[in-house]
Amino acid sequence: MNDVTAIEWLDIPAAQPDADARQAAAARQGELTKPPGALGRLEDVAIHLAALQATARPCVDRVHITVFAGDHGVAAEGVSAFPQAVTAEMVKNFARGGAAISVAARALGASLEVINLGTAFDTGPLDGVKDYRLGPGTANFTAQPAMTEHQLAQAMAAGRHAAERARLADAQLFIGGEMGIGNTTAATALACVLLDAKAESLAGPGTGLDHVGVARKVHVVQRALDLHLRSVTSAQEALRRLGGFEIAALAGSYIACAHMGLPALVDGFISSVAALAAIRLCPSADAWLLHSHASAEPGHRVVLEALDARPLLDLEMRLGEGSGAAVAVPLLRMACALHNEMATFTEASVSTQ
Amino acid sequence: MNDVTAIEWLDIPAAQPDADARQAAAARQGELTKPPGALGRLEDVAIHLAALQATARPCVDRVHITVFAGDHGVAAEGVSAFPQAVTAEMVKNFARGGAAISVAARALGASLEVINLGTAFDTGPLDGVKDYRLGPGTANFTAQPAMTEHQLAQAMAAGRHAAERARLADAQLFIGGEMGIGNTTAATALACVLLDAKAESLAGPGTGLDHVGVARKVHVVQRALDLHLRSVTSAQEALRRLGGFEIAALAGSYIACAHMGLPALVDGFISSVAALAAIRLCPSADAWLLHSHASAEPGHRVVLEALDARPLLDLEMRLGEGSGAAVAVPLLRMACALHNEMATFTEASVSTQ
Repeated sequence: MNDVTAIEWLDIPAAQPDADARQAAAARQGELTKPPGALGRLEDVAIHLAALQATARPCVDRVHITVFAGDHGVAAEGVSAFPQAVTAEMVKNFARGGAAISVAARALGASLEVINLGTAFDTGPLDGVKDYRLGPGTANFTAQPAMTEHQLAQAMAAGRHAAERARLADAQLFIGGEMGIGNTTAATALACVLLDAKAESLAGPGTGLDHVGVARKVHVVQRALDLHLRSVTSAQEALRRLGGFEIAALAGSYIACAHMGLPALVDGFISSVAALAAIRLCPSADAWLLHSHASAEPGHRVVLEALDARPLLDLEMRLGEGSGAAVAVPLLRMACALHNEMATFTEASVSTQ
Repeated sequence: MNDVTAIEWLDIPAAQPDADARQAAAARQGELTKPPGALGRLEDVAIHLAALQATARPCVDRVHITVFAGDHGVAAEGVSAFPQAVTAEMVKNFARGGAAISVAARALGASLEVINLGTAFDTGPLDGVKDYRLGPGTANFTAQPAMTEHQLAQAMAAGRHAAERARLADAQLFIGGEMGIGNTTAATALACVLLDAKAESLAGPGTGLDHVGVARKVHVVQRALDLHLRSVTSAQEALRRLGGFEIAALAGSYIACAHMGLPALVDGFISSVAALAAIRLCPSADAWLLHSHASAEPGHRVVLEALDARPLLDLEMRLGEGSGAAVAVPLLRMACALHNEMATFTEASVSTQ
């Protein structure tokens, strides 16, 4: 699109995973005291992390979690089971340590930061919440683009800076989470554009719509597509018109992680749509994204397939906040521990064949 | 079977899960700051553990793992990709801390004990391995019953005593593991009897047979079924004729856990067949068994269905030793942390509808 200002840093190529480390890790897996392949996908995880961390001994002890929060103008169309006030209320809950991601971060010993990109309601100043408000939520995209070009650039930069803080804190894994009433509707609309899919193939209950609510959501997404589809000829413009502050920030964070060579663990439906947008904007970012869980939100399967992603968990979770990714962290850690600490056949004098 | 000496303690009824604690835990899940059901199966896990531990605040910080090792006479029929010497070699590897379950136990802060119920090869004395050898492996069940009545009773008692040690150590969760070259063949034969299934519907590659090897395994199991099927009219006799020391010990441990009201987390194919035997011997034991993972061993799906079990993980693991159960422990812990530590809507002043 010539009428859109490019966000230049998105064009930086991603770092290259280390092929030698991958090969060495794969060879080591073959020498550990177990039948070849018997640790299943935990072997793949260890080998992938070894390549991403360019080491024979991968480790994800240090995890940085950033939750991006923002409201959505489209919430006015009645697309959520919860009122819009909940976004700000949950930001406070994150700050006080009572939300699922707060509990999970503590359990993991992970650092957690929360970024308010624009709640419709005021939270007041909160310890542990960065105030980067770009407006009182996005605009209602059934009537106009969700974001201005400036808002999009700022939201993506907020994601980039979160990833950079993770890197500066020497994190070994980045997790992005999101909170925003109405954001499954935004993610659905964005995915429809990116995948050339119909609203009814992707729209689902989100936080708990009944079938009447889902039908309304389909109709709302369809109206948005009717309005914007002809004007969208780039992933960036799709993100601006149909995304949300937190979705754009997630996409920016994933791209920045890939630039810096920091593995990112993707959460559920909304995060996966952000990952899809990130890969459309920076295709080489793909290698740096690990996929944690398959959400109960039905559209997630479609998005995961488009990403050629096989998440580790399928626990019927549908909470967002980064919670599914957090729950998968112990699996990554266990994969690393087994890879690093098991004896080889030679060390243990165990017969092979 | 009147010609079989009953093992009397098996008839003790299982403890009763606490219905009030279950109800209170389910109510609490509905009050936590998340859409109802949004934590998916982690909610079910927390509620189930609350009922088993008779508390509103379940906890599985203290985990006891017992690995039962034993050899199998049927290994002489060439049913494993590994030589029989590996059973004793792996017992040494457990003792030295180099096996997958050793690494996983350390990572979990779990206590690990290893019981040698009868390896064909001598291990010499080993720190941390209890020597309860009942013979140099079971008899080859293509020619005679795998165990004598005395051996079966002793093997089941060894499992019972392991569960009792876990209880005495104040463990909140018991995991049984197994090691024994040839034991997928024994588990397959036993499952065929318990489920009235054909050998070809349950036999799989185990530690890594090719299709010729699997065909041989099917033939070996079929020969065993031809020999024993008419003499088996109880689960106990099926276990004696076609099981193994470690399989009988696992079954005994699960039943003893149920008697004492100690939740047990079942590992993969062999453990699930032991769980099936346990439930046939003591039906009320069922409630005390949690299911950790679906193994890559194809017969596991059939056994899980018979158990009406939906394991938490599906990572294509097929190692045994209790490794799949160990990998699932962090999910149980996360389920408990979320259940216990999240704020309620009231506490956090978050709007509901």
